[in-house]
Amino acid sequence: MDQRITRLRDRIDEINLDLLARLSERAEVAEAIGRLQTELGLSHYDPMREQAMLEVLVAANRGPFTDAVVKSLFKQVFQASMQLEQEQDKSRYLTSRHSHVADTVVYVDGVPIGGDHPPVLIAGPCAIESREQLDAVAAFVASRGVRLLRGGAFKPRTDPYSFQGLGLAGLQLGRSVCDAHGLAFVTEVMDAADVGACAEHADMLQVGARNMQNFTLLRAVSRAGRPVILKRGLSATIEEWVMAAEYLLAGGNTQVVLCERGIRTFERFTRNTLDVSAVALAKLETHLPVLVDVTHSGGRPDLLVPLTKAGLAVGADGVMIEVHPNPAVALSDNKQQIDFETFDRYLEATMYHGRLSPGRTELYGAEG
Amino acid sequence: MDQRITRLRDRIDEINLDLLARLSERAEVAEAIGRLQTELGLSHYDPMREQAMLEVLVAANRGPFTDAVVKSLFKQVFQASMQLEQEQDKSRYLTSRHSHVADTVVYVDGVPIGGDHPPVLIAGPCAIESREQLDAVAAFVASRGVRLLRGGAFKPRTDPYSFQGLGLAGLQLGRSVCDAHGLAFVTEVMDAADVGACAEHADMLQVGARNMQNFTLLRAVSRAGRPVILKRGLSATIEEWVMAAEYLLAGGNTQVVLCERGIRTFERFTRNTLDVSAVALAKLETHLPVLVDVTHSGGRPDLLVPLTKAGLAVGADGVMIEVHPNPAVALSDNKQQIDFETFDRYLEATMYHGRLSPGRTELYGAEG
Amino acid sequence: MDQRITRLRDRIDEINLDLLARLSERAEVAEAIGRLQTELGLSHYDPMREQAMLEVLVAANRGPFTDAVVKSLFKQVFQASMQLEQEQDKSRYLTSRHSHVADTVVYVDGVPIGGDHPPVLIAGPCAIESREQLDAVAAFVASRGVRLLRGGAFKPRTDPYSFQGLGLAGLQLGRSVCDAHGLAFVTEVMDAADVGACAEHADMLQVGARNMQNFTLLRAVSRAGRPVILKRGLSATIEEWVMAAEYLLAGGNTQVVLCERGIRTFERFTRNTLDVSAVALAKLETHLPVLVDVTHSGGRPDLLVPLTKAGLAVGADGVMIEVHPNPAVALSDNKQQIDFETFDRYLEATMYHGRLSPGRTELYGAEG
Amino acid sequence: MDQRITRLRDRIDEINLDLLARLSERAEVAEAIGRLQTELGLSHYDPMREQAMLEVLVAANRGPFTDAVVKSLFKQVFQASMQLEQEQDKSRYLTSRHSHVADTVVYVDGVPIGGDHPPVLIAGPCAIESREQLDAVAAFVASRGVRLLRGGAFKPRTDPYSFQGLGLAGLQLGRSVCDAHGLAFVTEVMDAADVGACAEHADMLQVGARNMQNFTLLRAVSRAGRPVILKRGLSATIEEWVMAAEYLLAGGNTQVVLCERGIRTFERFTRNTLDVSAVALAKLETHLPVLVDVTHSGGRPDLLVPLTKAGLAVGADGVMIEVHPNPAVALSDNKQQIDFETFDRYLEATMYHGRLSPGRTELYGAEG
Repeated sequence: MDQRITRLRDRIDEINLDLLARLSERAEVAEAIGRLQTELGLSHYDPMREQAMLEVLVAANRGPFTDAVVKSLFKQVFQASMQLEQEQDKSRYLTSRHSHVADTVVYVDGVPIGGDHPPVLIAGPCAIESREQLDAVAAFVASRGVRLLRGGAFKPRTDPYSFQGLGLAGLQLGRSVCDAHGLAFVTEVMDAADVGACAEHADMLQVGARNMQNFTLLRAVSRAGRPVILKRGLSATIEEWVMAAEYLLAGGNTQVVLCERGIRTFERFTRNTLDVSAVALAKLETHLPVLVDVTHSGGRPDLLVPLTKAGLAVGADGVMIEVHPNPAVALSDNKQQIDFETFDRYLEATMYHGRLSPGRTELYGAEG
Repeated sequence: MDQRITRLRDRIDEINLDLLARLSERAEVAEAIGRLQTELGLSHYDPMREQAMLEVLVAANRGPFTDAVVKSLFKQVFQASMQLEQEQDKSRYLTSRHSHVADTVVYVDGVPIGGDHPPVLIAGPCAIESREQLDAVAAFVASRGVRLLRGGAFKPRTDPYSFQGLGLAGLQLGRSVCDAHGLAFVTEVMDAADVGACAEHADMLQVGARNMQNFTLLRAVSRAGRPVILKRGLSATIEEWVMAAEYLLAGGNTQVVLCERGIRTFERFTRNTLDVSAVALAKLETHLPVLVDVTHSGGRPDLLVPLTKAGLAVGADGVMIEVHPNPAVALSDNKQQIDFETFDRYLEATMYHGRLSPGRTELYGAEG
Repeated sequence: MDQRITRLRDRIDEINLDLLARLSERAEVAEAIGRLQTELGLSHYDPMREQAMLEVLVAANRGPFTDAVVKSLFKQVFQASMQLEQEQDKSRYLTSRHSHVADTVVYVDGVPIGGDHPPVLIAGPCAIESREQLDAVAAFVASRGVRLLRGGAFKPRTDPYSFQGLGLAGLQLGRSVCDAHGLAFVTEVMDAADVGACAEHADMLQVGARNMQNFTLLRAVSRAGRPVILKRGLSATIEEWVMAAEYLLAGGNTQVVLCERGIRTFERFTRNTLDVSAVALAKLETHLPVLVDVTHSGGRPDLLVPLTKAGLAVGADGVMIEVHPNPAVALSDNKQQIDFETFDRYLEATMYHGRLSPGRTELYGAEG
Repeated sequence: MDQRITRLRDRIDEINLDLLARLSERAEVAEAIGRLQTELGLSHYDPMREQAMLEVLVAANRGPFTDAVVKSLFKQVFQASMQLEQEQDKSRYLTSRHSHVADTVVYVDGVPIGGDHPPVLIAGPCAIESREQLDAVAAFVASRGVRLLRGGAFKPRTDPYSFQGLGLAGLQLGRSVCDAHGLAFVTEVMDAADVGACAEHADMLQVGARNMQNFTLLRAVSRAGRPVILKRGLSATIEEWVMAAEYLLAGGNTQVVLCERGIRTFERFTRNTLDVSAVALAKLETHLPVLVDVTHSGGRPDLLVPLTKAGLAVGADGVMIEVHPNPAVALSDNKQQIDFETFDRYLEATMYHGRLSPGRTELYGAEG
C-alpha cells in the first residue's frame, strides 16, 4: 500500500473517532431534551426545528459536500437520535418481539393456538347457508377431531347483487350448531356495527383481507373481548399487516392471531400466491400466532396438501380450510371448497401421529 | 385443396347450421323457463339443475370428446343462455353504459363534474391541521379560481400512533373556512358511524383507496345524500372498482365520481403508478365522471404536470392535488404536498385559456 | 316445482342429448380432417376457414342469441375440437406429465437429482473471485458432504460497470478446484457464444432468471450435452417457465432441472418472494426435478432455514444456497451470502439423519 | 419554550457545526485518497477497509448509541463520501442528463426522433408474413405519411412450436419492400449472432422487452452501427431500463431510443398497463428520446387513441403501432393489430395540423 494513502487513512481514523465522540455527546443531549419533552407533554418530533438546523448547516457549508449531501447526512444524524428514542420506544409497538419476547398463546374456548402447542385446524364452510348444511359439516369435522368451526354469516362480495350471507340468522345458526357438536365458532365480522352481535354469538372473530386496513372496524373489534383472526390484505406488505394488528393490541385486545391467505401476483394457475416468507417473518418480528389459509391462497384443491406442509414447515401455528357437504352447489367459492371425502384424504396426507405435520416424517424416520 | 378435405368440410358446415338451430331453440326454451321463474319469484341460476344435466350428458357420452370436454362445452352452452339473460340484465348494473348511455354530470355546490364541462380542479391540504393552515390554503386556491377544497378531518394511517386527523373539529373548521371563501368542501369519510357528521358539514364525501371494498361504508355513504368520490384501491382491478361504485348506485346515490390514484407496482422511483388505461376504460364502461389524483399516484412534485396532462389526455374530468402553506412541516404527506409558489407554476404549465389542458396547445396551434 | 317448468326442462334435456350427438359427430369429422392435414403436411389451424364458418353462421342466425354470442359459442365448439387434437398433441409438449409420467432423474457427475432420491444441496459462492476464495469454499462444503459446487464465472449485472465475473479464467478455476475436491461444477451461462466453453469446463449449466426467455440461449444450451438448471424469471408465470423448459427439451436435452428463485412482489422486507405453489405445480404439471434457490428468493440469512423447509415440504428435489468465506468483502451479493459458521448452523437446522428435511421430525416422532 | 430545552438546543447547534467541520475535512481527505487510488489504478471501493474502520468505531463506542446504530451512521458517512465521488462520477453514466444536458436526437434514414422534432409514428405488422402482406401495409402507411415501417423477421415466442418468423428471408423482404416505398425499416433482433444480418438489412434495430437484460445482445447491438429502440421489460424498474440503455451507450452507440410498452399488473381488462410516469421520468433522467408502444401496452384497439394521447401528453417523442391488412388471419397478435380502416380513424383522432397531438386542440383553441 502506498505510504501516502496510509498516512491519509490514519487521518481518517482520527476524524472517525472524533466524530463518534461528538455524535455520542449529541445523542446524550438529545436524550435529555426528549426527557424534558416527555415531562412537559410535548411531541418529540419537531420538523420546524429540524428545518431550522438544516438551514444553519447549509449556510455554514463550505464544501466539498454539496448542500444536498449535507442535508441528507444530517437527516441521518437526526434520525439516528430518533432511532435511539424509538429503540427505547419499541416497547410501544405491542406486536413487537422487542416488547414481548415470549410467544403469545391465544385460547379459543379452551383450545390453545400458538407457542409450543400443536398446529390447530380450523375447518368449515365458506358461508353458512342453512341448518342442514352447517349441521352436516359440523358433525363431520367434529368426528375428525376438529375443534374450531369456521362459517361466514356476513360475506364480503365484490358484486353488490351476490349472496351476502344470512346475517344475524347465520350467527344464530352458527352458535346453535356449534353448541350441539361441542365446537368453537369462528366467524367474520365486516362492520363495526355488527361487532356486538358477532361477539355475542361467536367464540372468535375474523377480520377479512379486504378489511385489514378498515381502521374503524379494527378499533371496534379490539374492544369486543373476543380472540381475533386478522387476515393479511391481498397486496399488503408485512409491515402494513403487523401495523393493522397493532391497532387491535393498542385497543386492549391481546388475543390476536395473524393469518396469511395469499397475495395477489401475476400467476394465473392459482387464485393467489401463498407467501411463506411472510409467515416466517411474522413469527420473527411479532409474538403472535400465525395461521395459513390454504383454501384462499391457492384456490385449488390439488394445492391444499403442499401448501399446508409448506405453512407448517415455516412455523405456522395452524391452518384454515373450507369444507362443504356439496361444493358444486355452494352459494360461494364453488371451486375451492372440498367435500368430506377429499377432506379425509387431506387429513391422511397431512397428519402424523394425530398432528398436522410438514413432512413425510415416516419416510425420513425409517432411515435412522 | 384436397377433395377429401372439401367433402368433410361440407359435412362440418351442415352440422354447424344444425347446431345453430338447436342452440337457438334451446335458448328460447331457456328464456321461457326464465320468464316463469321470474313470475314465480325463483332464482334463475340453479347449480343443482346444471349438475344433473351434466351427469346425464356425461353418461350419454360415447366419445370422441372426453367427459371433461363435454362438461366444459355444455357449461359454455349454459353460460350462453345465462349471458342472454344477463344481456337483458345489464340494466341491473347501474354503473354500466348499457343502462345509462349519457355521461352523468355530478354537481357539487353548483360546480359540474363530467360530461362536456371543463375539467375541475380539487385542491387543498392532505389533512386539516389548524384554522390558520386551512384558511391560508383556502384564500390562496380561491384566488386562483379553484372552487372545491379538499381537506381531511379523518386520516387513514397505517401506524395507529400517527396523527389521525382532527375529527369533528376538523369537519367544523372545513365548513367554516369554506363558507368564508365561497368554496365547496370535500372530505374523506372512513367510518359508517361518521357518515352523518361528514354529510352534515361537507359538500362532497370521499371514500379512500383502503376503503374501496369496505362494503358497509359504501352502503352508508350511498344513503347520505351527498355526491361521492370513490378512489380506486391500490391493487384493485377496474372491475372491482366499478363494482364498488355499483354499491353506491344500488343504494340510491347517483352522484358518484370515480378517482384513479395510482396502483401499487414494483417501481421505486414513484410512490404508485398512475394507470391511465383505467381512466380510459372507466370512461368507456361507465357513465360516471373520472378524476385523477396526481399527488398520490406519483408521489413526486416533478410528476404533477406530466400526470395531469396524461390524465386529461385520456379524458379525465378533473384532477385532485394537495397544496399546503408549508409542506416541510405538514403532519402527513410531507414530501408530496406542494407550496403556493409551486402550485402557481403547476397552473401555468397545465392551464390554457383558463382551463386545464392536456397538451401544449399553442405549439400545435401555431403551425396551422 | 311448477309443471310448466318441468315440461320445458324435459324439452331442454332432449335438445341437450341431440346437441351432444351432433357435437360428437362434428368432432369425428374434424378428426378425419386433421388426419388428412397431417398426411398432406398442412397446418391444422386455419383462421380463415374459421372466419368463413362464423360468417355463414352469423348470416343464418335468427336469434334469440345475438351474433356476438353465436360467434363466441361456436369459437368454443371449434376450440373443443382443437382441444381434442391438443389432448392427443400433449405428447408434443415434452415437459408434460402427459407425455412422460415418471419423474425424470437428472444425473450430474453421478449425483442424482429428482425422483425418489434424497434432496440435493448445491452450494458455493455467488461469483468465482480467486483461487484462494474458491478453494476455501470447495474444501469446506466438500467436508460437509456437499457434492455440487456452484460458482459464477459470468455474472449478469444491471449496471454495465459492475464486476462482471472472471470469464474464461473463472471457468478454468472452477474446473480445477472442483477436480481437486471431488465436486461437480455448476455455473451460469449467459451467452450462446459461451456455451461451448462453459460445457467444456462445467458439469452442469445454469440459465439465469433474466435469461429465462432468451430463446437463442435456450436453443444453444439444449444442444450442449450437459444437464441444465433453468431458473424462473422474476415475473414469469408458471406456464412461461415450463414453456422455456420446453425449448430445452425440444432441442434434445432431457436433463433439465427447474429452479424457483423467488418472484418480484411489493414486499420490502424480502428481496423476492419464494413461490412454493409454483414448486408444487411444476412437480404436478411436469416430470422434471425442481429446486429452490433460498439465497435469492428471500435475500435474508434469517430466512434460509424456513424457506428450505417450505421448499422441501412442497416436494422440491433440492436447494441452492450461496456460501462465501467472507461475505462482507464479496464482490457481489454481499448481504445474502453466508459464511462457514452460518452454513454449519443452517445444516444443523435442516438436516435429519443425513438428509435435508422439511420438518422437526424428531419432535413429531417423539410423540408416537 | 422551556429554558432548559433552549439551552440544550444551543449545545446541539454547536455540536452540529462542529460535526460539519469534521465531516467536511474527512471528505477532503477521502478525496485525496481517491485521487491517489486513481493515480495508482486501484479500486476506490474497499469493503475490507470499511469493515476495519467499523470495528475500531464499535470498539470505541461507549453509548448511548448501540453498536448497530454506530455502524449504520458511519456507513452513511462513508456513503456520503462515496456519493461525493459518484456525483463527480455521474459523467460516467452516459445516459444521464448530468453527463449530457441536451436532448439526443436520433436520425433513422434522415427522420429525426427526439428533441423538438414532432412526434414520429412507427407503424407496420407484428410479423413479416409474406411479400403481399408487407407490400400492402407499406403502400398503405406510406400513403398516410408514415416514414418508418416496423416488421418482425425474428419473433420471440413463449411456445417453442409457435410461428417464429421468416428469419433472413423476412429481413430481405423488409429491405426490398421498404426500398420500394421509400420507408425506413425497423426490425427486432433477438440474437447476438443475427445482429450483423439485421444491421445489414434494417435501418433501425429493436431490442424487445424479454431481452432488455440480455447483456450479450445489448453489447452486440451497441457495436452494430445502427440506431436502436430499447423496449422496457415487463417488470423492469425504470432504473433497470436506463441501466440497460447504459450498456448500449457504453459500447459506443449513442443513437438509442427508449420505448415504454406497458408493464405487467393485476389488471385483466388490459394486456399490460402503460406506465406514463416511466415515460416522464425517462425524459427527466436521461437525454434519450422515448416512444410509447400503444399496441402492446393496452392490447386493445379501443385504447389506442387514449394511450397515444397520454403518451404524447407526458412528452413521448413518438408512437409504435401495429397495422395488418387482415388482423383476423395474422400469424401473431391477432387481437391487437388493426386494419387499414381502423388506422385511418386512429389518425383522424390523434393528428392535428399534420402532427400527432395529445389533446383536442381545436376545442381549447376555440375558446381563446
